[in-house]
Amino acid sequence: MMTGMKNEEQLAHIRHTLAHLTAAAVLAFWPETKNTIGPAIDNGFYYDFEFPAGVTIGDKELGKIEQKMRELLKGWESFSHKEVTETEAEEHFKDNPYKLELIKEIVSKNEKITLYTSGAFTDLCRGGHVENPKKDIDSKAFKLDRVAGAYWRGDEKNKMLTRIYGLAFQTKEELEAYEAQLEEAKKRDHKKIGKEMGLFVFSPLVGPGLPLWTPKGTIIRDLLDKYIWELRSAKGYQKVTIPHLTKKDLYETSGHWQKYADDLFKIETREGKTYVVKPMNCPHHTQIFDSEPRSYRDMPQRYAETTMVYRDEQSGELSGLSRVLSITQDDAHVFCRENQIEQEVFSIWDIIDQFYGTFGFKDIKVRFSRHDPEHFEKYLGTKETWEKSEGALVKLMKTRGVEWTDGKGEAAFYGPKLDFIAKDAIGRILQVATIQLDFNMPKNFGLSYTNEEGKKDDVVMIHAAIMGSIERFMATLIEHTAGSFPLWLSPVQIKVIPIRENYNEFAKEVSDQLKAIGMRVDFDNSDEGLGKKVRAAKVEKIPYWLVIGDKEVEAEMVTLESRDHGQLGHISLPELIAKVSEEIKEKK
Amino acid sequence: MMTGMKNEEQLAHIRHTLAHLTAAAVLAFWPETKNTIGPAIDNGFYYDFEFPAGVTIGDKELGKIEQKMRELLKGWESFSHKEVTETEAEEHFKDNPYKLELIKEIVSKNEKITLYTSGAFTDLCRGGHVENPKKDIDSKAFKLDRVAGAYWRGDEKNKMLTRIYGLAFQTKEELEAYEAQLEEAKKRDHKKIGKEMGLFVFSPLVGPGLPLWTPKGTIIRDLLDKYIWELRSAKGYQKVTIPHLTKKDLYETSGHWQKYADDLFKIETREGKTYVVKPMNCPHHTQIFDSEPRSYRDMPQRYAETTMVYRDEQSGELSGLSRVLSITQDDAHVFCRENQIEQEVFSIWDIIDQFYGTFGFKDIKVRFSRHDPEHFEKYLGTKETWEKSEGALVKLMKTRGVEWTDGKGEAAFYGPKLDFIAKDAIGRILQVATIQLDFNMPKNFGLSYTNEEGKKDDVVMIHAAIMGSIERFMATLIEHTAGSFPLWLSPVQIKVIPIRENYNEFAKEVSDQLKAIGMRVDFDNSDEGLGKKVRAAKVEKIPYWLVIGDKEVEAEMVTLESRDHGQLGHISLPELIAKVSEEIKEKK
Repeated sequence: MMTGMKNEEQLAHIRHTLAHLTAAAVLAFWPETKNTIGPAIDNGFYYDFEFPAGVTIGDKELGKIEQKMRELLKGWESFSHKEVTETEAEEHFKDNPYKLELIKEIVSKNEKITLYTSGAFTDLCRGGHVENPKKDIDSKAFKLDRVAGAYWRGDEKNKMLTRIYGLAFQTKEELEAYEAQLEEAKKRDHKKIGKEMGLFVFSPLVGPGLPLWTPKGTIIRDLLDKYIWELRSAKGYQKVTIPHLTKKDLYETSGHWQKYADDLFKIETREGKTYVVKPMNCPHHTQIFDSEPRSYRDMPQRYAETTMVYRDEQSGELSGLSRVLSITQDDAHVFCRENQIEQEVFSIWDIIDQFYGTFGFKDIKVRFSRHDPEHFEKYLGTKETWEKSEGALVKLMKTRGVEWTDGKGEAAFYGPKLDFIAKDAIGRILQVATIQLDFNMPKNFGLSYTNEEGKKDDVVMIHAAIMGSIERFMATLIEHTAGSFPLWLSPVQIKVIPIRENYNEFAKEVSDQLKAIGMRVDFDNSDEGLGKKVRAAKVEKIPYWLVIGDKEVEAEMVTLESRDHGQLGHISLPELIAKVSEEIKEKK
Repeated sequence: MMTGMKNEEQLAHIRHTLAHLTAAAVLAFWPETKNTIGPAIDNGFYYDFEFPAGVTIGDKELGKIEQKMRELLKGWESFSHKEVTETEAEEHFKDNPYKLELIKEIVSKNEKITLYTSGAFTDLCRGGHVENPKKDIDSKAFKLDRVAGAYWRGDEKNKMLTRIYGLAFQTKEELEAYEAQLEEAKKRDHKKIGKEMGLFVFSPLVGPGLPLWTPKGTIIRDLLDKYIWELRSAKGYQKVTIPHLTKKDLYETSGHWQKYADDLFKIETREGKTYVVKPMNCPHHTQIFDSEPRSYRDMPQRYAETTMVYRDEQSGELSGLSRVLSITQDDAHVFCRENQIEQEVFSIWDIIDQFYGTFGFKDIKVRFSRHDPEHFEKYLGTKETWEKSEGALVKLMKTRGVEWTDGKGEAAFYGPKLDFIAKDAIGRILQVATIQLDFNMPKNFGLSYTNEEGKKDDVVMIHAAIMGSIERFMATLIEHTAGSFPLWLSPVQIKVIPIRENYNEFAKEVSDQLKAIGMRVDFDNSDEGLGKKVRAAKVEKIPYWLVIGDKEVEAEMVTLESRDHGQLGHISLPELIAKVSEEIKEKK
């Protein structure tokens, strides 16, 4: 039931072919250039070059190369390839130390060496091109995008190369749509909007990757968390609370220490013990489950906790809220019997559907993230437990009647996952939630329960975060809504604007009445004129504002305006309260 | 306005005199014993001895010594003292190296050497005894309590001495009351009750001092926190959220690094940077305040956050919830103008009164914790700022019309405090809440706001935790209530008990209706008999249980029993709901 693979494969072939074409164009201008590797990537491709001394690639050069690519493309009507011996290959690339290194590597792995040729350009390659570039590639559906530095093989000990990035799609319209999306994404950048709206801040004294949440940002965080909790509570979850530290013993037992020691924040205590700042919550939660004997009557135990975890990321990788050191996971772990897996997974799936549906995320798709059989050493447990757990997930997806894409090698080290992928308001694809099935960690911790026959039986763990992390979801939500949060989530829901000072008294009364029923209200009693006050409300993306003047005071009404629907006319306070209360309740 | 000092002083004199008497009795039996020091302490006194080789002090010996003390007391009718020279003192104690060391120390400080004598016993001492031991000490109001090891001068490099502890009061009744309190305290030990009720657990893999909170314990934690938040929210506080880590730069600026580096959990990152796990929240909160320019119109800013802080405690000091590594502070910081101090402190004071009043803590007293002028080097800032901040607190206490006790040297390193001291249900004195006034940290962080004249002005910080920490308050509350939590806080509020299986259906209906309105209900559908089910409800300290049998099903009523008030008779479901809803709302 794989979907869209054919289209995706064709697009990857177009992109990879264009990487070849880039190299061909570069070598046409600067034959001394050493071309290295050029893969297809999301949205396009890149190629890494060592240019001859003195050659710098700027916008002008990119234009030249792009033009040459279009010229050459006309003569690329097929791709031929041949297998060569090590000696032949070395002879062909004798002036290119990068290719020579790659050849050595291919030989050492006992793989075939193949050369691919189109037009006059031949490259060391494993294939994956379109058959007829001239025909298969729309010359208006690609462009060279930008230049960046990149170490050879990503290793900073190696030479810095010049990477040329290109964008490429199947049609011109797709390219234009993508560029428009990029432009829109820039306007919606959560770092920019978050700062403008005063939701979170960074301090140089605290450090990068460690956001400090202002009162406004905290209101949104807490409401999101409360919503998740309402959904979970209805499914029988219970909250638990764990500390952020542990002796390293916990991770030696879970297996994290052996796999991820480098990624952990470690502490040496004054007594010389090693503690760790938790990078995840599951091992701690097993200790609550394991703190008393459990019978089949107690199963499942469903623990939920929203709490920060910490991982020692490279500072260069930190970015706004998308990549932080302090990650607030809306985490939950279900400890259940094997025959309870389906019900528990479907429970979580329902929560995911409802939560993301509330925000209008569309086309939620499932990726089945399974283990990579060629690298079994990366995982906990036996082949049998992996077959069992992956089989269980496949069965569930079939029962639920969904299609899925394959995520070979995307499993967690302890078990396979269902990853949920959604599209945001500007069409970007995002991973949003995850459900993980784990037969291994319960074994490592020796978890068990007593079954109906009075015998010890194995426990299955289900790991599931709905938002993933509040930080990542906030970044997503800010960009999805461009900061125009729905009424129920807005830090300020209603602004009360008296036209002049003499209406302040009635305006304050209105404001107090709204506050008394729990609305978040801002009363603008500044000395500014009406126009300026309304503009301020719009800039702050406040969902509703009430204008109060002569007529309003007389009629005991307010004039209601909406961020999303414009002028809504006169309305009495009871009507207003009924209207917004309903919208808040419905999370519109 | 110091209170009760005269009585307290007399009691200290009784206790110190009894320490002398202990030494006299010990030397009467084992003249070779080297007596060292013997101060008065809370509830009694101790004396440290080096006994001759082969002498072990057990219960039998304690009894002998105590008897001898009562004998000797009859002959102690006065205390005489004389000042002696170093040589005379050394001659007197020539066989006692401990006393010789103390004499050297007195001389080096250029202080007088005095010997105090009563009966036939003379000790090196600074005084502080009753005038006529025989008359002033009730021989039935003291007893020797227990024996412990103690290093000479508390230093583990020194010799281990034998410490004899005694209990002492002014009357026999007071001694008996204290012993009864000890006995009761043992029964109420929060470690014991917490385990029985399944509120929190410790795991050897996670480590000591790091409690894991079960669903039941988390319900109580969250309700306490919610209550504090309701009280604060009504006073205009706003929630903020900070990470648990920071670059050490933050604490270099605040002054914590210089004062408390040893107490901090430090992290070396993979990139070689030093991070710290936060031991308090104020420095982080300054960075939120400082993230945008503030005008007098924005003041005060009141930030509240319930969050865990961590300190590197010696593992030997960790105990249950009273001393943990993971401390959940219900913290808040007010950033205000000088002329706003009174209103803000009184706001917090009101919250403290209301919160502790809810739980029936009595006789809340205030300690004025000020700096120690003889050790000014321990504090941030200038003499002037300390005079100002301490003066401000004294003025506030006078305005509020309260008495206070003096806490010289008990200030925080950044400012003076009001510490609130309460009595629990069994009469124990506990420090419960604190309000700290801080002119120094805002200076260290360069905080300011723009005043009415458009000029930068100084910011004052008020630090205030109501519970102090959830852990400490939970320990206190468990022992205060002996685990019988009030209805609104109980993890299970109502247990529904059908007499036999055939009433299960009606019982489940009742249970579901109660759950639907948010009650925490346990439906006991086990196969046990009524007696056993009721006993279980009592052991679990559930506030109410409903018994359902023939009569109840017929009359559509339930029979209500209360943990605290026994049988309450027949009641209809609507009546029951009205009754318990009211009690929950009133936090009875």
